[in-house]
Amino acid sequence: MKSYNDYLSIVNERIASIPYPEQPEQLYEPIAYTMALGGKRLRPVLALMACEAFGGNCEQALTPAIGLEMFHNFTLLHDDVMDRADVRRGQPTVHRRWNDNVAILSGDAMLTMATQLIARTGEQHLAAVLELFNRTAMEIYEGQQWDMDFEVRRDVSVDEYIHMIRLKTSVLLGCACRLGAIIADASAGDQQAIYDMGLNLGLAFQLQDDALDVWGDAATFGKEIGGDIMNNKKTFLLINAMQRATGDDALELRRWLNDPEAARVSKVAAVTALYERLGLRELSNEAIAHYNDLALQALDRTSMPQEAREAFAALINRLVARQS
Amino acid sequence: MKSYNDYLSIVNERIASIPYPEQPEQLYEPIAYTMALGGKRLRPVLALMACEAFGGNCEQALTPAIGLEMFHNFTLLHDDVMDRADVRRGQPTVHRRWNDNVAILSGDAMLTMATQLIARTGEQHLAAVLELFNRTAMEIYEGQQWDMDFEVRRDVSVDEYIHMIRLKTSVLLGCACRLGAIIADASAGDQQAIYDMGLNLGLAFQLQDDALDVWGDAATFGKEIGGDIMNNKKTFLLINAMQRATGDDALELRRWLNDPEAARVSKVAAVTALYERLGLRELSNEAIAHYNDLALQALDRTSMPQEAREAFAALINRLVARQS
Repeated sequence: MKSYNDYLSIVNERIASIPYPEQPEQLYEPIAYTMALGGKRLRPVLALMACEAFGGNCEQALTPAIGLEMFHNFTLLHDDVMDRADVRRGQPTVHRRWNDNVAILSGDAMLTMATQLIARTGEQHLAAVLELFNRTAMEIYEGQQWDMDFEVRRDVSVDEYIHMIRLKTSVLLGCACRLGAIIADASAGDQQAIYDMGLNLGLAFQLQDDALDVWGDAATFGKEIGGDIMNNKKTFLLINAMQRATGDDALELRRWLNDPEAARVSKVAAVTALYERLGLRELSNEAIAHYNDLALQALDRTSMPQEAREAFAALINRLVARQS
Repeated sequence: MKSYNDYLSIVNERIASIPYPEQPEQLYEPIAYTMALGGKRLRPVLALMACEAFGGNCEQALTPAIGLEMFHNFTLLHDDVMDRADVRRGQPTVHRRWNDNVAILSGDAMLTMATQLIARTGEQHLAAVLELFNRTAMEIYEGQQWDMDFEVRRDVSVDEYIHMIRLKTSVLLGCACRLGAIIADASAGDQQAIYDMGLNLGLAFQLQDDALDVWGDAATFGKEIGGDIMNNKKTFLLINAMQRATGDDALELRRWLNDPEAARVSKVAAVTALYERLGLRELSNEAIAHYNDLALQALDRTSMPQEAREAFAALINRLVARQS
């Protein structure tokens, strides 16, 4: 097994070599811009790792793996339009740098390019890979719609939240793992186990993301702390806070949620203190550890050799302990 | 060969039976709404006709053919957001009835659903059909981008315009024909000829659309006459008018183009009269007849039996003579 950074180099090299037509400029430039913004490239790396772990040749998984990264970036691009987000990975979002129409259309083109890349799978695996990818894409749209629905609801339960992030974030990590396994001709049992590993890793990953927005360090996190708090975003933390807070805590929380003029520094500090008082840092850590364990258990159900298992376990532990 | 209406019934019946999940409502309702708005269903009908004309079983082409209709409706949905169009087929557009975010996300889901339907092609044709479909989709996005680019340009040539509508409209008709031919196991020559037929039919069709906006009858056309004129839309007619008009005609045209406050009735009447003076009704009819001829010539290059050839020829003539 190669290291994460080895896989990352392979992925980044291939992404840098994607040929984009020169014209029409406003269609292709935003795609090249988005793909060049970087990131962890977690989805293609997982696909390559899973392929090699099950004895496949990771060259055969590379093009479809890049398709998953293209798809992921397409969802970020369109989500940024829907959420009116100005910044992504420290740079202006496409709809801010160009405009909404450019973002909509170049996003559409990215989805089709993603499908083109994913369709460059050997004929014997094409139908299975496509079916997996398209089903996953539908789940992700459902997750994004639930996320938007939750914005205008006050009664979102923790279960509903977990269901939403499972769809919006986790299934794509599961899909990446399974795609690699399919291309490696892994057994149905191995395919399911590695999918489950990706899914639970995704849940731990998203809960960690929610926590980093509150307790992260702005310098290493790469974005301003408290963005979710300022947006009253219904994260694992806010949903639990709304359920747990009573008396004065409940009044205070409601006041901050209903004050669109609140100063950032005051609101973020007060809500963070409230989260601490309500024991949410521990609750969050427990939930992350829970999904982390489920991911490791799923990993143990696979038949992959010890070396590969250890590489995945190291990745899981590293992602969950990450500060950015 | 069945009649157009027979194919239309088959297509509409299948579209009506598409199962949509109930939740999340805001994701799936707009898709069902869009697909139920109706229309000519030209693309799936062409696919079924081409499949039968080359001796295939049109049942095998039905699901991917519905995928093309789903894709077409996805492009209309996103185009309507980009063009801020309020009405489509006499009903409020999705972004007007719901909102922009719903239109963006349900459009994305339609593109993936279209791909799912198209991927339900027999394994032996899957790679070819997907490649054709994805390439066509990319061409259509390019066409839409050129169309938007042309809005802010004054020097668009007729050749550029034809190139744009070839991409934005015609390639999907070519793709529909070729998809049917592929599934019928038609020869490479037949596939190319029927594709060319669809392409030229598409050009004639779009030029006819431009003409109907000026000389059509609102009652049969189904939308208000003069929409393109009011929007200064760079159609075949306006581009030719900008090239042909000299002296007072040129001054008058420029005045109407630069008057955002112009009354609809006056502007539409004046620009229509100008088009007539410049001989554009004849020029438009000649161009339509030209592409109509090219479509018939391409049809003649196919090896299909006489009965099928006649059915296609009747369809071509009927579409080009249409008033709606």
